[in-house]
Amino acid sequence: MTKRILNRKTTEAVGEQVNVMGWVHARRNMGKVVFFDLRDRSGLLQIVCVPSELDEESKNSLDKIRPEYVIKISGTVQNRAEKQINSDLETGAVEVLAKRIEILNECKTPPFEIDKDTSAVNEELRLKYRYLDLRSARMNQNIRSRHSITQSFREFLIGEDFVEIETPVLAKGTPEGAREYLVPSRLHQGKFYVLPQSPQQFKQLLMVSGMERYFQVAKCFRDEDQRGDRQPEFTQVDLEMSFVEREDVMDLVERSIVNTIQKLYPNKKIQQLPFPRIDYKDAMEKYDTDRPDIREDKNDPNLLAFCWVVNFPFFEKIEDGGWTFTHNPFSRAVPEHREWLLNKKNIGEILTTQYDVVLNGFEIGGGSIRNHEAEALRCVFEVMGIGAEEISAKFGHMLEAFEFGAPPHGGLAIGLDRLVAILQSEPNIREIIAFPKTGDARDPMMGAPDVVSQQALKDAHISIDTE
Amino acid sequence: MTKRILNRKTTEAVGEQVNVMGWVHARRNMGKVVFFDLRDRSGLLQIVCVPSELDEESKNSLDKIRPEYVIKISGTVQNRAEKQINSDLETGAVEVLAKRIEILNECKTPPFEIDKDTSAVNEELRLKYRYLDLRSARMNQNIRSRHSITQSFREFLIGEDFVEIETPVLAKGTPEGAREYLVPSRLHQGKFYVLPQSPQQFKQLLMVSGMERYFQVAKCFRDEDQRGDRQPEFTQVDLEMSFVEREDVMDLVERSIVNTIQKLYPNKKIQQLPFPRIDYKDAMEKYDTDRPDIREDKNDPNLLAFCWVVNFPFFEKIEDGGWTFTHNPFSRAVPEHREWLLNKKNIGEILTTQYDVVLNGFEIGGGSIRNHEAEALRCVFEVMGIGAEEISAKFGHMLEAFEFGAPPHGGLAIGLDRLVAILQSEPNIREIIAFPKTGDARDPMMGAPDVVSQQALKDAHISIDTE
Repeated sequence: MTKRILNRKTTEAVGEQVNVMGWVHARRNMGKVVFFDLRDRSGLLQIVCVPSELDEESKNSLDKIRPEYVIKISGTVQNRAEKQINSDLETGAVEVLAKRIEILNECKTPPFEIDKDTSAVNEELRLKYRYLDLRSARMNQNIRSRHSITQSFREFLIGEDFVEIETPVLAKGTPEGAREYLVPSRLHQGKFYVLPQSPQQFKQLLMVSGMERYFQVAKCFRDEDQRGDRQPEFTQVDLEMSFVEREDVMDLVERSIVNTIQKLYPNKKIQQLPFPRIDYKDAMEKYDTDRPDIREDKNDPNLLAFCWVVNFPFFEKIEDGGWTFTHNPFSRAVPEHREWLLNKKNIGEILTTQYDVVLNGFEIGGGSIRNHEAEALRCVFEVMGIGAEEISAKFGHMLEAFEFGAPPHGGLAIGLDRLVAILQSEPNIREIIAFPKTGDARDPMMGAPDVVSQQALKDAHISIDTE
Repeated sequence: MTKRILNRKTTEAVGEQVNVMGWVHARRNMGKVVFFDLRDRSGLLQIVCVPSELDEESKNSLDKIRPEYVIKISGTVQNRAEKQINSDLETGAVEVLAKRIEILNECKTPPFEIDKDTSAVNEELRLKYRYLDLRSARMNQNIRSRHSITQSFREFLIGEDFVEIETPVLAKGTPEGAREYLVPSRLHQGKFYVLPQSPQQFKQLLMVSGMERYFQVAKCFRDEDQRGDRQPEFTQVDLEMSFVEREDVMDLVERSIVNTIQKLYPNKKIQQLPFPRIDYKDAMEKYDTDRPDIREDKNDPNLLAFCWVVNFPFFEKIEDGGWTFTHNPFSRAVPEHREWLLNKKNIGEILTTQYDVVLNGFEIGGGSIRNHEAEALRCVFEVMGIGAEEISAKFGHMLEAFEFGAPPHGGLAIGLDRLVAILQSEPNIREIIAFPKTGDARDPMMGAPDVVSQQALKDAHISIDTE
C-alpha cells in the first residue's frame, strides 16, 4: 500500500500528489463530473473525479462506487475556486483531483443512514449493526470524547501521585451484594467466582498494603433487573487514598472533575465552585430527593450544577425491624458518632462519612471514609444482625487485614458512563458505550447471551435448571 | 487530621515543624533514644525520639510501637550530624525530632518479614497476606513499574492517534476457543455469556466502524489448565489499525516498545534495532523453536534481544487428517498465497501474515493482518471443515460486517504481564500482578472461588453436577 496521508493533512499539501483512503461519505453526480466526500478518521475531504483525468480501470470503478465503499484515491491536491470554499469543513479550501481510484472494499446498502444522526433509528437495529452506527458523526464523537474524558481523569490522578492498579475480575462474592454474576470454576467443582460489583475490598486492601493512592478505570458488574439505562457492565473511575479525611477526598475529586470540564468542555459553565455541600436532611426537606437538581436555569444546556450531599444516616430500618446500611458497610461513622457505633446505641441517628457527588440531578459518584478499625467494622456487621460466625466467614479477611497496620483511608467512585453521557448531552448511557447491551442485557450484534455446548457445561460442572 | 507532608519533602523543610505519617519500617533502641525508620509512599525517613522532648502520652506510645504500626509524628526537621548522613537514603541528610507521637493503628506481628525481599517466603502465605507482601520494597516497585509501563504504552499510542475503547467483558463464546469461562444469564434462562479470551472480534468490528486506530489495556480470560505461570485473567495491550500492511504494524509496535524501555529502563540495552525479522522456517531450523532466545550474552541481565518471527504456516494438520489454523482464523494469508486460499489448494504451504514479537525467548506479543474480505474468511472456515450452517451461526455477524465496507486492517496484542515481568527481572508474572491467582486459579486471600447460596444458583438457573 503506498504511503497514505490523512484527509486533514491535504491542506498542507496543495499542488502535491497524494494518496488518501477512507469511506465514501456522499456522492454527488454533476453531469460528467462526480464529487465524493471521502471520510477518514481525521474528517471529510472533497474528491473531484473528471473522467478525462482517470485511467480506464478507475473510470469503471467510478460508476460502481456508492456511499460507504472503502476507496483509495491517488490524485493532486488543488485549491478550490473562491466560490467553492466550504468554511464548515476543515479541508474546505482544498480538494483532490483524482487520477486513480481503487476500490478497497465494497459496501452493501446500510440498514440506516450513516451520514445523519441515528438517534431516531430503531435501537435494536442500531445495536445489531453497531459497527455502522459508530460510523455516524455523533456516535463517533461520543466514543472519542469518552476516551478523552477517561484519559483526562487518568492524567490528573497520576499528577496527584496516584498509581493505577488492576484488581481481579474473577473475584469472590460479597454478602451484601445480591445480583452478582457467577462464574463456575472448572478446576474446583461446585465453586464459583463472582464478577465484582466494584473493586471495593481490593482497593481497601491496597491501602493496607501502603500504596496510599490507588485508582483504576474499573469494569464493574451488576445483574440488576434492567431498568432505564442501567447496564450489566459499567465503568467507574475508582479511587482510594490513605491519611485523608472527608474534605480531602471531596476536594481532590472536585478538582479532577473541574479540570476535565475546563479542558475538554470550555463552553460548559459550572454553576458554583467549590461544589456546595448539602446535608442529606436538608436535601430531603428542600428537594425531596438526595440527588437534587440545583440548576438555576434548567433550559441552559451548558449549565453544570454540581453539589455534594453529605451526612447520610449510616443505617436504615428494614422490614423485619432490623437494620441495614444505607450505602456501604465499610464506611466510617462521622467522628462524633463513633462512640455510638462502638456502643451500638442511637443506631438510627448515626451519620456516615458517605459523600455523594450530584450533577444536574444525577448521582455521578459516591464514596466515604472507611472504617480502618477492625473493631468498629465488626460493630457495623453486628448492628446488621450478622452472627459472629458469618462475620468471620464473609469478612474475616478484611477484619484480619485491618489488624496489620491499616491506615486511615477513604475514596470514591465516579460513574464514568453517566458523567460522559451528561457532558455529551446524551439521554442514555448506551449512546456513549461502544458495545452496550440492550435493556434486557442482550447484545444483538454478537448474539449474547447464547446457548453453550453440553461439553462446556460439563467442564464447568453445571447443568441448566429446566423448571 | 493536621496537614501532612511526605517524607521526601522534609529535605526542603529543615527547621520547620511538620507532621509526617506512615508505617514503622524499623525500630532501633539506643538506650534512652529510640530511632524509627518511617515509611510512606515517598520513601523512608529517620525519626528521633528523645523522651525529654516528648509529651507524657507520646512517651507511653513510644514503648508500644513496633514495626508496621501506623503512626503520626509531629516534630521538627533537623539536619543530621555530618557523620550520621546516610547517602543511600533520599532523606539521608535530615531527620525529624519527634515532639508528639500518635498511634493511628496497631499491627499484629506480620507472618513474614516485610522489610526484606519476600521471594523465598512460601507463596501460599504471601498470597494469603498479599496486602503485606505488597508492602515490601520489591513488590511495591513491581506494581508501580507496571503502572508506568502501562501508561507509557498508553501515551505513545494516544500520540499516534489511537483511541482507547472499552469492549465488553460479558461477551459471546468463540467457537475456536475451548476453556472459556461461562457466565449464566439470569434474565435469559439456559443462556450464557462468556468471558472473552481477547477483544479480537470487537476490535475488528471497530475497524469496520471507521475508528481506524483502536487500543485497549484489556483484561482477557482463559480457563486453561494452570501450567507454569499462566493466569486465568491476564492483561493485553491490545491494538488494531486500518489501512496498514504487516510492516506498518510491526514498525509501530516496535517503536512503542522501544519508547517505553528507553524512557523507563535507561540501563537496559536493546541488542538490535530494528528488531530482526526471522522466518518461522529459519527459526525452527536454527533454534528448534518459534520463540528463539537470540541474546548474544545470556548472562547480561540488562540485555534485551527482541525479534519478530514471521511467515508462519496458516494451517496445520490435525489428528483426523483435517486442518486447523495455527494462530488466528481471522488472519489474512500473505498476498502471494491469497489465490491458494481462495481456491483451497496447497493448504499446507499457505503462509499467514501473523507476526510474533519475541523477547529473550518469550513470546511477548502477536498479531496479523486480518481478512477483511468476507469471501476469504469464509474459505478459512471451509478449509477447517466447518459447514455452511455452522459458519453462519458462529461467524455470521463477522462475515456480514465485512460486507459493509470493512477497511484493510491488522493489529497485535502485547502480553503485558510477561513484558513487565521480564523488564522487572521477575521469573514469574505473579510477581507483577497486584492480586494474582495461584497455579490452580485460587485467591487464598479472599477465598475465591467459593461456594455460593442455593438462591444464587436458582437465580442463575443452574445446578451443580454432583457426579
